[in-house]
Amino acid sequence: MDAPDSSHLSELIALLPPGAVRTDAETMLEFGRDWTRLHEPRPLAIAFPASTEQTAAVVRWARAHKVALVPSGGRTGLSGGAVAHNGQLVVSMVRMNRVIGVSPADRVFRGQAGVTIKTVQDEAKRYGLMYPIDFAPTDTMQLGGTIATNAGGVHVLRYGMTRDWVAGLTAVIGSGEVLDLSVAVRKNNVGYDLKQLLIGSEGTLGIITEASVRLAAPPSETSLALLAVHTADDLLACAEQARRYGSAVLALEFWDNAGMTLSLGYLKRPPPSPVGGDSRWYLLGEFEGRDVARLWSLACQADRCCASALVEADEERAKALWQIRLKIGSSVAPYTPYKNDISVPVSALPAFLPALADVLGKDRAGERLVVWGHLGDGNLHINCLKPDAMPLPDFAAASRRVDDHVYDLVTRCGGSISAEHGIGLMKKHALSLMRSPPELAALRGIKSVFDPDGIMNPGKIFD
Amino acid sequence: MDAPDSSHLSELIALLPPGAVRTDAETMLEFGRDWTRLHEPRPLAIAFPASTEQTAAVVRWARAHKVALVPSGGRTGLSGGAVAHNGQLVVSMVRMNRVIGVSPADRVFRGQAGVTIKTVQDEAKRYGLMYPIDFAPTDTMQLGGTIATNAGGVHVLRYGMTRDWVAGLTAVIGSGEVLDLSVAVRKNNVGYDLKQLLIGSEGTLGIITEASVRLAAPPSETSLALLAVHTADDLLACAEQARRYGSAVLALEFWDNAGMTLSLGYLKRPPPSPVGGDSRWYLLGEFEGRDVARLWSLACQADRCCASALVEADEERAKALWQIRLKIGSSVAPYTPYKNDISVPVSALPAFLPALADVLGKDRAGERLVVWGHLGDGNLHINCLKPDAMPLPDFAAASRRVDDHVYDLVTRCGGSISAEHGIGLMKKHALSLMRSPPELAALRGIKSVFDPDGIMNPGKIFD
Repeated sequence: MDAPDSSHLSELIALLPPGAVRTDAETMLEFGRDWTRLHEPRPLAIAFPASTEQTAAVVRWARAHKVALVPSGGRTGLSGGAVAHNGQLVVSMVRMNRVIGVSPADRVFRGQAGVTIKTVQDEAKRYGLMYPIDFAPTDTMQLGGTIATNAGGVHVLRYGMTRDWVAGLTAVIGSGEVLDLSVAVRKNNVGYDLKQLLIGSEGTLGIITEASVRLAAPPSETSLALLAVHTADDLLACAEQARRYGSAVLALEFWDNAGMTLSLGYLKRPPPSPVGGDSRWYLLGEFEGRDVARLWSLACQADRCCASALVEADEERAKALWQIRLKIGSSVAPYTPYKNDISVPVSALPAFLPALADVLGKDRAGERLVVWGHLGDGNLHINCLKPDAMPLPDFAAASRRVDDHVYDLVTRCGGSISAEHGIGLMKKHALSLMRSPPELAALRGIKSVFDPDGIMNPGKIFD
Repeated sequence: MDAPDSSHLSELIALLPPGAVRTDAETMLEFGRDWTRLHEPRPLAIAFPASTEQTAAVVRWARAHKVALVPSGGRTGLSGGAVAHNGQLVVSMVRMNRVIGVSPADRVFRGQAGVTIKTVQDEAKRYGLMYPIDFAPTDTMQLGGTIATNAGGVHVLRYGMTRDWVAGLTAVIGSGEVLDLSVAVRKNNVGYDLKQLLIGSEGTLGIITEASVRLAAPPSETSLALLAVHTADDLLACAEQARRYGSAVLALEFWDNAGMTLSLGYLKRPPPSPVGGDSRWYLLGEFEGRDVARLWSLACQADRCCASALVEADEERAKALWQIRLKIGSSVAPYTPYKNDISVPVSALPAFLPALADVLGKDRAGERLVVWGHLGDGNLHINCLKPDAMPLPDFAAASRRVDDHVYDLVTRCGGSISAEHGIGLMKKHALSLMRSPPELAALRGIKSVFDPDGIMNPGKIFD
């Protein structure tokens, strides 16, 4: 990509409404990066289009002048997908926050890409419906960004990934053309489903500008229980007990002692009674049905796989209990964590967990580890916190060496090196572990079809 | 595509085990067509590979000699996707019927592409699980074929399309390379999801040779009710009543008087008492929960939107009642039906149904119409039966003229001209109604990436 000269930037400024292109230092820093901290932001400028048409004008300008673009949502990504470290123009969807409408009969929400997930959830609630994609920063993360990254979250076990909820979308692809893939009927077999390519494309094919997502009927009653567990074997035994409740299991989340301590500190809360804060592992089960959590915890206690249990049927107190799990990510953020986001088949967990402990115990000795994740679907987040004294580049290099061992273990178990965070910049080096040469050729071929001049988030996912 | 000379065919025969290439008239007729009857089968030969490797050998042979291939599953398709009318080599998956395994902990079934859906369902049942893709000929339709066509069926309302259940697959693409997209973890964000392109590709990108599908926990108890309804308004009012039961609605199927008469005739059964066989419309609702069907029928009767109701909680009798709906397709087959398979948003049905009746009343006057479908997800099958005296080509031409009016109506309602049957040969002429020029360019670009020499089912979906 060429560095555009100032006359090109003036042309862009003239294409958009006043104030829609910014180059002040504060905006450049804020919109030049996501939640990763390994790259210094260095964008060309930040553009804030307000419509699909304005976005298309930006993309056509970029194509004419061969300027690299970084599509930008809520910037809560953990793989560097929204980082602009190389003179790119960031195209932020933050002004495109219009709710287009909810059709309760069709159970579909439609909005611009910059609508937050909190807004989608609130709009759904007005009609007695819900949007089941849910994780920590719902008031920051945006509809378009969560689709471009195929976001997961805490209810994937029951409800699936973002991909499972996208009914239609509109996108400006790298060619500058608008693809209106907005027919939102569930049954629509008319050739290759192009929207599936944009879902999870991390901005490398185009910019999603509008989207329709399906909404669900919420479970009538739910119940929650937090178990304190002493060993990995007990953790799996408790999970096995939960599986007996079939599709009534809404979430099955776990974290370790370090995660408990950090999150309670972040929330300024005492350990929840009676489970306390001293166990090796914690397991949170959420179920459809008022009694199920209690029955589950009783079965686990009878089986002696859980040390103590806290059952919460009250909605507000259950929400507060959820916060312990949801704030682990925020509580580790100040410690410059190196994140692993891997998944293995549930059936592989009994072999995987001890082998992982071996690898981490050997390679990460002396470093602070925090492990948590979505036990129900085999998705683990392994966070290594940077020792204060270690320079960031050394820490990153050491972390990548451990990655090699973790990834080797994951792929041998039939799992994935990136469960829900995506590849972005952070995992490019490992993509070939998951993708054969013919697959990589297909990825690049598809990229060329959508983005013939390579202006859409170049260098993300693959070079 | 060139017509291969006989030395080329000898080369193919030598590549495969004895008997795996057939050219006898009976096999050529049987495997040269699907359930459509508008094209005369005229294949080059029929190949029966037994493994992914043998399939790859066939594709590489075809690419070397520029021979067009028609991938072939259970041939129950209704859009001509598996028709070989032009000297193509049919590649049948019928020998590839090996069950690779079920992992109950992961809730995943894996098998070769030629495994029937009945086998998938039976294997799932052995572990107390279910495979929710379900429509009439489960003992014929194959796993690979249902994935290549993104099959729907009667439970889409609750469970979604085949796409929603595919965990992983292996395919030989048109380049002759094998894509092993078999990592079956639900969370796997590692670049564009290539399997999504093969799902619904109707054999134009490659041949699916193995697949993993997710299995579900079955609903604990279900109940069924058949309502007799007099008007389209009443039909929608009864559907609206069903929607109140949220995700407990498993299926909501409707058919007309003609469909009732034909199916009862096919099944050699009297009209079910007390609903009888004289109503204009019938609506079948299946629910999770023993009492829900009864409550629904009582609510509809109290609302005076249903004339009479038959509630069936007994499993065997419920199965028999389902047969009336499931056999409509078979019962119209002898009458050379011209099929429309369209979907509109549920919210558009109140405006769409009367407008459709107008169009059909005008354009199809004097012809026998049978209308049925999946009311719960807005998917209608409109079948026009060929008058005995009318030659087939005239009937096809007349039918396409009516299509224009139906499709116009459908697209104005935000619906789809092909809900679950696909495009194949039958709807190519109408594809541009659903796909803009940039979309069509993207479809063709993707086709070139997977199938550079255009040997995979050429002329299907698009030319």
